[in-house]
Amino acid sequence: MAKQACFLIQTEDRKGILAEISAFFAGNAFNVLECKQYSDMRENRYYMRVVIDMEKDCMTRRALSDAFAEVAARMNLKYSLHFSDDRCRMAILVSKTSHCLYDLLAHVREGDLPCEVPLVLGNHPELEHVADMFNIPFFCCPVEEGRSLEQEKAVLEILQQHKIDLVVLARYMRILSESFIEQYQNRIINIHHAFLPAFQGGNPYMRAWQRGVKMIGATAHYATPELDEGPIIEQDVERITHEASPDDLKQIGKDIERRVLTRAVRAHLEHRVIITGRRTIVFAR
Amino acid sequence: MAKQACFLIQTEDRKGILAEISAFFAGNAFNVLECKQYSDMRENRYYMRVVIDMEKDCMTRRALSDAFAEVAARMNLKYSLHFSDDRCRMAILVSKTSHCLYDLLAHVREGDLPCEVPLVLGNHPELEHVADMFNIPFFCCPVEEGRSLEQEKAVLEILQQHKIDLVVLARYMRILSESFIEQYQNRIINIHHAFLPAFQGGNPYMRAWQRGVKMIGATAHYATPELDEGPIIEQDVERITHEASPDDLKQIGKDIERRVLTRAVRAHLEHRVIITGRRTIVFAR
Amino acid sequence: MAKQACFLIQTEDRKGILAEISAFFAGNAFNVLECKQYSDMRENRYYMRVVIDMEKDCMTRRALSDAFAEVAARMNLKYSLHFSDDRCRMAILVSKTSHCLYDLLAHVREGDLPCEVPLVLGNHPELEHVADMFNIPFFCCPVEEGRSLEQEKAVLEILQQHKIDLVVLARYMRILSESFIEQYQNRIINIHHAFLPAFQGGNPYMRAWQRGVKMIGATAHYATPELDEGPIIEQDVERITHEASPDDLKQIGKDIERRVLTRAVRAHLEHRVIITGRRTIVFAR
Amino acid sequence: MAKQACFLIQTEDRKGILAEISAFFAGNAFNVLECKQYSDMRENRYYMRVVIDMEKDCMTRRALSDAFAEVAARMNLKYSLHFSDDRCRMAILVSKTSHCLYDLLAHVREGDLPCEVPLVLGNHPELEHVADMFNIPFFCCPVEEGRSLEQEKAVLEILQQHKIDLVVLARYMRILSESFIEQYQNRIINIHHAFLPAFQGGNPYMRAWQRGVKMIGATAHYATPELDEGPIIEQDVERITHEASPDDLKQIGKDIERRVLTRAVRAHLEHRVIITGRRTIVFAR
Repeated sequence: MAKQACFLIQTEDRKGILAEISAFFAGNAFNVLECKQYSDMRENRYYMRVVIDMEKDCMTRRALSDAFAEVAARMNLKYSLHFSDDRCRMAILVSKTSHCLYDLLAHVREGDLPCEVPLVLGNHPELEHVADMFNIPFFCCPVEEGRSLEQEKAVLEILQQHKIDLVVLARYMRILSESFIEQYQNRIINIHHAFLPAFQGGNPYMRAWQRGVKMIGATAHYATPELDEGPIIEQDVERITHEASPDDLKQIGKDIERRVLTRAVRAHLEHRVIITGRRTIVFAR
Repeated sequence: MAKQACFLIQTEDRKGILAEISAFFAGNAFNVLECKQYSDMRENRYYMRVVIDMEKDCMTRRALSDAFAEVAARMNLKYSLHFSDDRCRMAILVSKTSHCLYDLLAHVREGDLPCEVPLVLGNHPELEHVADMFNIPFFCCPVEEGRSLEQEKAVLEILQQHKIDLVVLARYMRILSESFIEQYQNRIINIHHAFLPAFQGGNPYMRAWQRGVKMIGATAHYATPELDEGPIIEQDVERITHEASPDDLKQIGKDIERRVLTRAVRAHLEHRVIITGRRTIVFAR
Repeated sequence: MAKQACFLIQTEDRKGILAEISAFFAGNAFNVLECKQYSDMRENRYYMRVVIDMEKDCMTRRALSDAFAEVAARMNLKYSLHFSDDRCRMAILVSKTSHCLYDLLAHVREGDLPCEVPLVLGNHPELEHVADMFNIPFFCCPVEEGRSLEQEKAVLEILQQHKIDLVVLARYMRILSESFIEQYQNRIINIHHAFLPAFQGGNPYMRAWQRGVKMIGATAHYATPELDEGPIIEQDVERITHEASPDDLKQIGKDIERRVLTRAVRAHLEHRVIITGRRTIVFAR
Repeated sequence: MAKQACFLIQTEDRKGILAEISAFFAGNAFNVLECKQYSDMRENRYYMRVVIDMEKDCMTRRALSDAFAEVAARMNLKYSLHFSDDRCRMAILVSKTSHCLYDLLAHVREGDLPCEVPLVLGNHPELEHVADMFNIPFFCCPVEEGRSLEQEKAVLEILQQHKIDLVVLARYMRILSESFIEQYQNRIINIHHAFLPAFQGGNPYMRAWQRGVKMIGATAHYATPELDEGPIIEQDVERITHEASPDDLKQIGKDIERRVLTRAVRAHLEHRVIITGRRTIVFAR
């Protein structure tokens, strides 16, 4: 893969931002491969994603980082910088259902998700064999009665030891504490098995059946302390009929969940997502 | 159009229903053109839609009605019977937005909705010109401050005078009273501009924008006394991006609303819908 | 509506284009409301759409036009410039089926298609009443046996007299001559009732039925001398079942055709389409 | 799983079929769990799928088979009979790309595809590790220069030795001979990486890019001697933009291919497909 650098930028909207930022790259002889921007006129915010070619390095990474930091300070930009060969270290947290786990790991294997997976972690031992199949270390952190904080601490330690950048909750059936979420702020992606904000909380397929909806869906979002309230990255739905029982919905839903979660993780790993309040800017591929 | 009779049937599920009912039609030398059924094993209910050919009448309608009534009494069937040349009389109720009204009337004109439209009724005068275009009488029933029951009474009278069978709320921005709804039970179709049960109530597009959803939708349902809680007939969604402002959502939503409402009305007019509690059985075309 | 100017630009891809163009707007104190670009690395082409605010005119239109023309000459840009209050004059050509015509005219009426419709033109008289409903002049140009060039000449004259900018073929069942198409190059939008390149040519619904496809579609494209081969603007599909007869496909297809054509026309009218060879760049809203 | 028997029936359409068949099941005290039918009036054919409960066997399987065979002979029915605990033996044929293989095997593991997979067979050795992960025997049948018939013979022998019922071509990049296809008539499912009949033959993603389509798709169909012409079981599409390069289309396409193939295989395994000429009847779940 070509060496590239990707900037995700946000700032207050005003005249001349694009000109100033693009002048920086042009002035340093970088080729801009992609540049997407969005001005939210309601909130007066400006969002930008710029990908530049680092192939024929005119500058070292360090020099680029330092130079852009100066620009950002002057222009009051909030930004992050990502180099294409810094691979994200992603941990997958699971309970007992395997469909999202299989889909993520198969995509990683096929080279369709640019990351490493140093570990899979379960609060149950059931899915160890799946991690084994893919030669990925599996950690089991069961929850003992009344000792859920201890379990969470154990989980956190493992994530930190392995320098995890992104935590994917692939049908991990535990509610995380506020303190856990803050330590991985904007770096925890959850899949909810409903089309949020419909059917927040538990048992969404049964409730969808009872309500008689004609489509069911799934939602991938960043975890925040408020359950199922975090910024949405991706959603999808499928049409159902009256014939589908709650169990059928669960089965149909599995296929929606796996593709929604995998797409959301891909968007994050490709640095196409900027979070702003309860919303996300997801630049299309 | 060929003359046909359509039966919508529901009963307790048990062995032999299909055999018994189909024996009735075979015994009377009717050709069964379509027969769909669904057994809801959770609730132990049986639902059926049968269309038979009346072309070479072996029986008069009256004879058929009487004969089947006997079968139904014996088998404890709840049913309705519809002859293809009895055209439904549909009233369209509107306020100020015209997109659903245009779409319904254009479909009627093109012969794609089997009904008559004796009238359009608005609580505002704005859409009279649309009714005029299609040569359909327009009635304006404005709501005077604090006199909404009087207005509803006036509406009811007009509907009754015109022997209306089906009331379509095509973005009619009034909440109907329980007594109104009961008089047209299972015969009022409403379009809600959100993917229910998400964003029940007012201002759904603004709330969808604030929540940052990645798809918006619309829902057509039978009106019940509980607002936006009636049995759903049809839903659809469209993918949106972060760039869509609340006003853009409104515009995109209009196209979803019009197709969802038109499809729901068509399903009702083609006698493909059975209501059961909060759910509908919608037999596909 | 706010006064805006929109530039559609294409040129050879190279370093610094974005910086140079955005410097022009910043240097002239314009606020850039939207800016989208795309670098096609395969073909080494660069495409851009820029919308600027003209509210507090720092420059007259004329001055802006002249100044940008200089930039374009220096940078070797191919471009078009559109002011938001120059409304496009759109002619709709029809034969006997009305569904696309209704949908276009209803959208224009509702303010959802920014254009004027000076005329509807049919090669049959059938749809005059629809034009009448919307108070739009209708011209009938029937084709006499063996005199199709004469008819086309009559059509052209009418279009020219009315200074038509965009010709929409809303199920106009005539093949246009090469010379006609050249006079309205890139300004004729056609709707084909199939998912191109499947089922090019006549009778697509019957052929779709015979082939047993599980989805049918429609395609809006710019007309070119090669039938059904022009650059595609928009496509959509709908799922069908084995139960749908060829006539059902036709009816289902009408709803796909109307929304695909309306969306394509909207994209054109909002200056979101750049044509390049057989492909289009369609900047999302 | 409950013990059930499923009949797939087709015959000439005529009066009384439904009554006669349902009388058979009622007369033998079977509970009909599902019954779907379809009358193709164009071709005067009748299609039916009946699922009955075998839990409290009133008859042995043998007795049921024999009794129904008599009915079928009398009524001139073409049919197949499937018992829910006879599990289909499915072979998966692959070349070098693994995405469909992973998806099928993960679904089998999760219990979402009712079959056994006695073997995976490749014409290249690359995917042996995937079969290994799932503990499934892998057979490699490479094609030597000019000896493709010998290879096919080797493949056939392996399939026969393992009593394979269904052959799934999961991106198996070989054209099968007519004789091979006849031996597994209506029992070979292929995935084509385009929305047939668009882009039949090789290199569909590149051709889709060149044509500038706005959606790409995939098609699962039964293999017939004519390449990409067999009866279609399932299709799906995804919307793409001008930004997607041919390589991006390939990647997006992988996700469409995997879900289309898995759905088609599921429909076949659940005995929901009847083949009739170039078309399929696929009874919905």
